[in-house]
Amino acid sequence: MGRVEEELVKLAKSMKLRTGALGLGDDCECLKLTNSFLCANVDGFRAKDVKMEFMDLRDVGWRGVIASLSDLVAKGARPLASSFSVYSNSIEGIKELSEGALEAIREYDLIFMGADSNKGEDAIDVFSIGTAKKPIPIGGAKVGDSLVIPRGCWGCVSTCLRGEAEGEILEHCKRPRIRIELVDVIEEFADFIHASSDSSDSLAITLWRIASSSKVRIDLFDVPKPEEVSLEDALFSGEEYLPVFIIENDVAEEFAKRIGGIVAGKVSEGEGVYFRGRLLEPRGWEWF
Amino acid sequence: MGRVEEELVKLAKSMKLRTGALGLGDDCECLKLTNSFLCANVDGFRAKDVKMEFMDLRDVGWRGVIASLSDLVAKGARPLASSFSVYSNSIEGIKELSEGALEAIREYDLIFMGADSNKGEDAIDVFSIGTAKKPIPIGGAKVGDSLVIPRGCWGCVSTCLRGEAEGEILEHCKRPRIRIELVDVIEEFADFIHASSDSSDSLAITLWRIASSSKVRIDLFDVPKPEEVSLEDALFSGEEYLPVFIIENDVAEEFAKRIGGIVAGKVSEGEGVYFRGRLLEPRGWEWF
Repeated sequence: MGRVEEELVKLAKSMKLRTGALGLGDDCECLKLTNSFLCANVDGFRAKDVKMEFMDLRDVGWRGVIASLSDLVAKGARPLASSFSVYSNSIEGIKELSEGALEAIREYDLIFMGADSNKGEDAIDVFSIGTAKKPIPIGGAKVGDSLVIPRGCWGCVSTCLRGEAEGEILEHCKRPRIRIELVDVIEEFADFIHASSDSSDSLAITLWRIASSSKVRIDLFDVPKPEEVSLEDALFSGEEYLPVFIIENDVAEEFAKRIGGIVAGKVSEGEGVYFRGRLLEPRGWEWF
Repeated sequence: MGRVEEELVKLAKSMKLRTGALGLGDDCECLKLTNSFLCANVDGFRAKDVKMEFMDLRDVGWRGVIASLSDLVAKGARPLASSFSVYSNSIEGIKELSEGALEAIREYDLIFMGADSNKGEDAIDVFSIGTAKKPIPIGGAKVGDSLVIPRGCWGCVSTCLRGEAEGEILEHCKRPRIRIELVDVIEEFADFIHASSDSSDSLAITLWRIASSSKVRIDLFDVPKPEEVSLEDALFSGEEYLPVFIIENDVAEEFAKRIGGIVAGKVSEGEGVYFRGRLLEPRGWEWF
């Protein structure tokens, strides 16, 4: 959450609005139904801010849906349906953005809930809903918990931006994918997972958000990144569309194994985020 | 639905996506729950396309929420929650757009489901969800039915654009309002209402959409507009945020009375929309 989002949260708080189960400033918001929660997320961007030279507008549309679904999965919500709004100055642009978004909607077997289109700079906003048995807050980390991170393309986007990527890393940058099946494991461990967040702006920023929302210190030891990616990129790149979890220490190893990840750190009293003993700068993607 | 939306519907159809209870090309989409439907709508625009000289960005944000809620109400869905995505090149712009949207969310007692913000031309996309006992399709008009239209600011936006508006008409253009309580009446008459649509692009275009979706002819006799507004504006202006209904003839008068409207026309065999016997041009707001 960057400075602008913080200002929006402050504004919304001052207006005393009705909010849902997770509240202002989390990755998505959930409403209590009879036996479950309905969760919703909105995510969007301009094409010029995410489109790398090897991408077309279809890839941008695809990425819009992924960005939105990823936030749901990180909270333990099973994606159900998506709708979107697209802007372009040409009908061709509207169609390409929409086609990529619809491809992702089909790929993840979602119900398509409609779209709006308008003239403007190429951009897409995606709104997705899902259902959760028990949505995970961002601010629930407890002293003694462990940090679990799935293996994934940590740092890939920075590598792509420098033109150093090929193979799977390039593919991640062009058409990132998410693992919906993580929701099954999350539901199984629901009573032990205390906090989670999707990593959008960077791993460093995500851990800082969890630490400050939970009023704890997080020590990070390792990042389960591809070998070709530098540690620097893995910590500060962003756009991984991967979740991070804070879970009770006793079950952390088992949970890590089940999601294909590692126990990457621990939670203790204090504040801030440390990497191998040194303060980790809260640096990553911010648009203002 | 303009040409671009038609192309999007064609694209989505060709991809054989999963859809909900209303299907592609309606004003919103609904998912069947146990005893009701969850309906969702997305609506958005650039500030430069809707902002008149007497409006600020707060008014644009407000209008985004209204545009989205209006589609839900027209389908008989009770608005429940909204989220939005805003674009601006300044933090001040993001805040103003958000503040107007949040004011509407508070005004209509909705749950705020979160927001995203990005740099770009001033724009807002609003996603709203609601629940319906029985969502009304656009294509269900039957021969012998009547057309019922509520009294409202039909044609006001064209009047404002020409600088001829004052008082209530100016207020409608600046901060349009919708009548959520219509949902109570719609639910009461649910078994008799066969088709409905929100009038966004113009009354003429809206009636054409209902007629062609339902494969019937609609004859319009009158528009319950303010006295100061010309008939031409009332037919072709758009942005009224008012619903129109096709209902069984027997209960049309009673329904019209209850919603504060008039029986404004009838449905017969054939195709097209006629006003006082002459073919009505399907003209209104289209952005390409």
